[in-house]
Amino acid sequence: MIVLGLDPSLTCTGWGVIRVDGPRLSHVANGQIQTHAKAPLADRLHHLHDAVFAVLGAYAPDVAAVEEIFVNKNPQSTLKLAQARGAVLAACGRASLPVHEHAARLVKKSVVGTGAAEKSQVQAMLKILLPLAKVEGADAADALAVAIAHAHLAPHGR
Amino acid sequence: MIVLGLDPSLTCTGWGVIRVDGPRLSHVANGQIQTHAKAPLADRLHHLHDAVFAVLGAYAPDVAAVEEIFVNKNPQSTLKLAQARGAVLAACGRASLPVHEHAARLVKKSVVGTGAAEKSQVQAMLKILLPLAKVEGADAADALAVAIAHAHLAPHGR
Repeated sequence: MIVLGLDPSLTCTGWGVIRVDGPRLSHVANGQIQTHAKAPLADRLHHLHDAVFAVLGAYAPDVAAVEEIFVNKNPQSTLKLAQARGAVLAACGRASLPVHEHAARLVKKSVVGTGAAEKSQVQAMLKILLPLAKVEGADAADALAVAIAHAHLAPHGR
Repeated sequence: MIVLGLDPSLTCTGWGVIRVDGPRLSHVANGQIQTHAKAPLADRLHHLHDAVFAVLGAYAPDVAAVEEIFVNKNPQSTLKLAQARGAVLAACGRASLPVHEHAARLVKKSVVGTGAAEKSQVQAMLKILLPLAKVEGADAADALAVAIAHAHLAPHGR
């Protein structure tokens, strides 16, 4: 099973693809899709949509996984994030790819062992779980983490 | 100038196309794009994206107009709305269509004369401003209102 993890955001959307073979996980690819802060919102959303759709075409995942979203302390950030997520998930729908959502806490717990893990702990665990991965950045790391969490939480599920 | 007004929502996205010829406004078309509440989120977002893209192809607007978004009292509704808006605006970006955002209050003020207008007042004004329009529903009416507001607020602007 090929799992695509996604960490949508308007500025920089992370993605990570892993192969799940029973209990074995292996890294396939990861990356980050950046948009220009000065570009019009619609163009930035289109870029995210299109680039994610290209990733789907390149790696043909069986399933996508993404963290659940919530309204945080900064409403403007939440609105940007949610719009980016809408554009990214629409690309998954366009490819008829099933998308699973996991709570952020469960993702951390699944990867590190505690739901209150720091970003640095997640990244340290990635080096152990996917030793061959050269991770492009923090957003790609988060995307790989959600892909790994999905493999743990739904090992046979699509 | 052909103006497309959009009223995005996950359940039912309204759209309305008007022609602006100096001070004259005329109705071109309007409609509503509905999604199934039980369908997966990604499929619903893709459907909105695709259907809006089809509207752009059919009516070739010069500009799109949409109300500004804000976090309201119901965070879950806001997140659904924002994701729908992201999928819809990505379709505008895909068609290289410029998108203008107007505050809800300004849209009402521009169409009815007061920023505190009720929905029924907006719909009554639509019958006066676009007498030949057969409006498909409340969401299409809101979309036509934002298109009219754009014509008033940015008569020469794209």
